[in-house]
Amino acid sequence: MLKNILLIIEYCGKNYAGWQRQQNGISIQEKIENAIQELTGQKININGSGRTDAKVNALGQCANFKIDCTIPPPNFSMALNSILPEDIRILESFEVDMDFHARYSATGKYYRYTILNRKMPSAIYKHTTCHVKQPLDVEKMIKASSYFIGEHDFRAFMSAGSNIKTTIRTIYSLNITQNDNLIFIDIKGNGFLYNMVRIIAGTLAEVGKGSIPVEEVKNIIQSHDRSRCGPTLKASGLCLMEVFYN
Amino acid sequence: MLKNILLIIEYCGKNYAGWQRQQNGISIQEKIENAIQELTGQKININGSGRTDAKVNALGQCANFKIDCTIPPPNFSMALNSILPEDIRILESFEVDMDFHARYSATGKYYRYTILNRKMPSAIYKHTTCHVKQPLDVEKMIKASSYFIGEHDFRAFMSAGSNIKTTIRTIYSLNITQNDNLIFIDIKGNGFLYNMVRIIAGTLAEVGKGSIPVEEVKNIIQSHDRSRCGPTLKASGLCLMEVFYN
Repeated sequence: MLKNILLIIEYCGKNYAGWQRQQNGISIQEKIENAIQELTGQKININGSGRTDAKVNALGQCANFKIDCTIPPPNFSMALNSILPEDIRILESFEVDMDFHARYSATGKYYRYTILNRKMPSAIYKHTTCHVKQPLDVEKMIKASSYFIGEHDFRAFMSAGSNIKTTIRTIYSLNITQNDNLIFIDIKGNGFLYNMVRIIAGTLAEVGKGSIPVEEVKNIIQSHDRSRCGPTLKASGLCLMEVFYN
Repeated sequence: MLKNILLIIEYCGKNYAGWQRQQNGISIQEKIENAIQELTGQKININGSGRTDAKVNALGQCANFKIDCTIPPPNFSMALNSILPEDIRILESFEVDMDFHARYSATGKYYRYTILNRKMPSAIYKHTTCHVKQPLDVEKMIKASSYFIGEHDFRAFMSAGSNIKTTIRTIYSLNITQNDNLIFIDIKGNGFLYNMVRIIAGTLAEVGKGSIPVEEVKNIIQSHDRSRCGPTLKASGLCLMEVFYN
């Protein structure tokens, strides 16, 4: 009998060309689909909650697939982990309703962007942080973050190359916290445009440096003008923390 | 004129046979000494605050060396970083008194041991944590930690192979905190025996599992009997955070 199985996936993006299966480079999707084939003998397509770019990490990516096999759904995690490389781990696997789709059923996502703010780059956390050398004023960043909350047309915070119907998104929360020289930007929203979190992080970093005034962020959002935002910060600082479902 | 220079060093231990220069394997000490030679043309011996084993990480290792050269001491950090591999970073370099010695002048050290406590191992933090699958009762671990505080003969918490005068050490503090499924054991003391932090962490983990009762830890310390402690936990969970000097 066909079952619909949901995987919760953690991965280190460093060695991959991103989530999505592609010609040029090894993807996380491909690794998992190959592992399912090795385990079950069945060539299956899995639906991710969305793409993550090369080098982006995930603590809570979600993907589902339909399969007719005798393996109990909770056993897929252990079984797939024994096949997968160590930098991809299935944290959980369980059966979901047949109409569940990891992408279309998602009601929102939680991303964390991590900045290492000190003079020297990290010897240990290079692949999970973005190094920013200039001292950042976190209080200013927190003040500016409030302008992002709510429903806005985030066209200014999108890289070219995506084909989407609307650039309106709702940010539920944007929290900035500091632990020693690490700055965490936690963003939850109903959806994100291409590179949106990395451009928001880049804009907040410019606010922290003092090169974009706090109040200017409101105007930048309204301008819909990408050139007025900060740069797209490095993929290594981004982590998909959680995908929300009802 | 001869100057005495102190380096504050961060490294990821994953790719090294430990701090100490040795025949079999590449050490962090060797990498730094080679970088100093490449920079200055001088073959110099550096004094580390102490050894760290293979795979142990450091956020604040200290080492000093004496050199007669025209490079301003604060410039050594940037200059050496341009030569060193990315998993070794000199965070700071500055001149210290001629009688300063990174090992003999040290008054204490701060180590952190990090346990990832969940069913699945980490895809991302494998080299900076130790994975413990069984659920740990952190409240019990905190209660047991109090027995370690103060001056004790820690002979039970020492691996064979070290040549030392006394096994008496003073633990200034032992704090256990939890962040989601990460458990941090922060230990500060005037000195540590070989593998002492990893055996303390292993014993506290057994307390957390319920296989060693909380009150038994007091007896284990007094017994001076290694066989009654928990196992030596993995090197990857250990990090030398700071070396104390007056």
